[in-house]
Amino acid sequence: MAGYIAFDSAQALEYVKNLGEFFAKDAVLNCYEFGDGNLNLVFRVEDQQGHSVIVKQALPYARCVGESWPLSLDRARIEASVLNRHGAVCPNHTVKVLHQNDTLALTILEDLGHLAILRGELNSGSTFPALGRDVATYLASTSFYHSDFYLSPAEKKALVSEFINPDLCAITEDLFFDDPYRQAERNNYPSALSSEVAKLQQNAALKLAVAKLKAKFFSSPQTLLHGDVHSGSIFVDANNTKLIDPEFGFFGPIGFDLGSFIGNLLLNYLAQNGRVSSVPKRRDLHTYLLSTIHQTLDVFQARFAALAHSHTRDLSLQSQGYIEYFLREVLKDAVGYCGTELVRRTIGLAHVSDIDGITDEQKRLQVQTQALFLGQQLVLNADKCESKEDFYQLLLSLLQ
Amino acid sequence: MAGYIAFDSAQALEYVKNLGEFFAKDAVLNCYEFGDGNLNLVFRVEDQQGHSVIVKQALPYARCVGESWPLSLDRARIEASVLNRHGAVCPNHTVKVLHQNDTLALTILEDLGHLAILRGELNSGSTFPALGRDVATYLASTSFYHSDFYLSPAEKKALVSEFINPDLCAITEDLFFDDPYRQAERNNYPSALSSEVAKLQQNAALKLAVAKLKAKFFSSPQTLLHGDVHSGSIFVDANNTKLIDPEFGFFGPIGFDLGSFIGNLLLNYLAQNGRVSSVPKRRDLHTYLLSTIHQTLDVFQARFAALAHSHTRDLSLQSQGYIEYFLREVLKDAVGYCGTELVRRTIGLAHVSDIDGITDEQKRLQVQTQALFLGQQLVLNADKCESKEDFYQLLLSLLQ
Repeated sequence: MAGYIAFDSAQALEYVKNLGEFFAKDAVLNCYEFGDGNLNLVFRVEDQQGHSVIVKQALPYARCVGESWPLSLDRARIEASVLNRHGAVCPNHTVKVLHQNDTLALTILEDLGHLAILRGELNSGSTFPALGRDVATYLASTSFYHSDFYLSPAEKKALVSEFINPDLCAITEDLFFDDPYRQAERNNYPSALSSEVAKLQQNAALKLAVAKLKAKFFSSPQTLLHGDVHSGSIFVDANNTKLIDPEFGFFGPIGFDLGSFIGNLLLNYLAQNGRVSSVPKRRDLHTYLLSTIHQTLDVFQARFAALAHSHTRDLSLQSQGYIEYFLREVLKDAVGYCGTELVRRTIGLAHVSDIDGITDEQKRLQVQTQALFLGQQLVLNADKCESKEDFYQLLLSLLQ
Repeated sequence: MAGYIAFDSAQALEYVKNLGEFFAKDAVLNCYEFGDGNLNLVFRVEDQQGHSVIVKQALPYARCVGESWPLSLDRARIEASVLNRHGAVCPNHTVKVLHQNDTLALTILEDLGHLAILRGELNSGSTFPALGRDVATYLASTSFYHSDFYLSPAEKKALVSEFINPDLCAITEDLFFDDPYRQAERNNYPSALSSEVAKLQQNAALKLAVAKLKAKFFSSPQTLLHGDVHSGSIFVDANNTKLIDPEFGFFGPIGFDLGSFIGNLLLNYLAQNGRVSSVPKRRDLHTYLLSTIHQTLDVFQARFAALAHSHTRDLSLQSQGYIEYFLREVLKDAVGYCGTELVRRTIGLAHVSDIDGITDEQKRLQVQTQALFLGQQLVLNADKCESKEDFYQLLLSLLQ
């Protein structure tokens, strides 16, 4: 941490001014912090003409419920490097890095303030017709171009090493795969769910399936993941979809990002049961969310396959049928990871406002019960999903 | 390569003398080079009382059939580091490192000259009752203690990075998984095998299975492998089994080492058909080799399971049934990699003296045909081997 200091607004403003890259020399700048302050400082620096940039600085700890959790500043380097690499192959859907300072754990990013965070938009019932297509395009492009299909083995091995991210991976390892499946202090659920949670924690088949997913998370460096594709990491408007915040990035299983995203759509789907009382309105939202899931898988598989069929460098991986086999395995993984996202967002440490924001306690509890059921069933049946159609059938049978 | 020079015998002697660690101050030392000179220099430094050490130095290239292949000197660091790590958990079966100099790409090792290289011993019909048990003990111990079962995620990730070994992995990637399955200059087989090779190279199911094995070799860092467990990397006598030469070490799939070893036993099994004309003698050798394969799998699975059941650190991987599931997957991988070893040793660049040393051309060709058949069938049927018994049944049906 030599050379590191956590900035206040004045220091962030001064830093940007001194760079002399983003504003006119005589611009009158204003700066304010607006992050949630849990993991990072986030400043907006703006001039009086409405131009602005974002200054994001990592803090050396995570302030989580009731505890302070030391966290490597190296995640700022990783986040900026993932954005640069993902931006190089999918510029349309990756927030742009304007400047990077690893010593200060600081990144300057384009300001996406004209867009809105997806989670809030979905919670308020907005829909975005291109969302599935755009996120799938991002996931297919970024995952293909950092996979063994495309990279030379030497490049890939060097990148795996560059993106070793133990602190942030440990958070996922604990919160996704450990805590919810055993009594853990960090778990967080209403006592009314206790008997359901107890059953879950005694379900040997479920815990075996989760162990397989965790083992893959440990040791399946298929590509450079974003690592945290939830609805709070996506900025949207009618014409734009931008991924932000890949500080959890590392080389892991492709299905993890895909499953996390679909999991967040499903959490919102269930949450609408407790949010929207108008039946037609709710049906419309449900239809939209399911069609977005279809769009996501359709576009992801089609785009990944198209890239792989035309740009696979490795001779052996060009073998007939391998790409299709690989995508089937990615789908199974995605369904499994999707299930773990539903479970951990319901009874683990970090919840989603989609559900927690349901004011009626009974309705909220009902949604939580549904999410816990759906999550477990997806984990348990993931391996049976040989195709998208299998997954849709499974989903429909579980959502009834 | 700054500071590196390739030693001659006088320089190797001088280096050892100057260390002052291994011999009496006034000892009269003698030194000679006796390696095959393809990849490394290997010197023996000895005094007049019969004490000796081995000095092994990496060359910056590999002299392979008709070409010079530049090769990172970093493999000397990797080899010594693998030996140190493997020796720490399995001292009985790992050659001892006495000194390491990464700048000179040089390692001083205990002299195992009182033992013999396994391949030559098997070729001359010797048997070693503890061979399977010892190699299995080595493989189970070294693979368990460097796996996600045992290491903390942060330790494991750091080690994966430390043992990134692109140059040597590339050799395996090319020679095991690419060359034999397509027309490649480096392939080496008699023209009488051409039609069999052409069929092999057009077998889509086989190439798909090989692609899956290659993908796992790329991206399944389960443990710190030896990376080159063939009969030439094992020193033996009646009471000792010592693994040497892990310069191909990296974090890869556990089944790779296991399959390579079994593959070498099977190559010798087939070679005996062309080496030994006495039916009872041949039957005895066959019985010995098959029982060594049984012993290897029995002891490997039992020992890995015992370690995992009592020393697994990871909470999730302790889930009921996970260890057994994991070992089933390792077995399938091992059968597949075993098959690729048979294929590549028959038609690829690097052959084995077990077969090439058969003087009668017709007999040799017959053995090569058998090895090619067995290798392909093992690759094609590996996924059906849910248990050791399934594998033995498969093997017996193929060896008839």
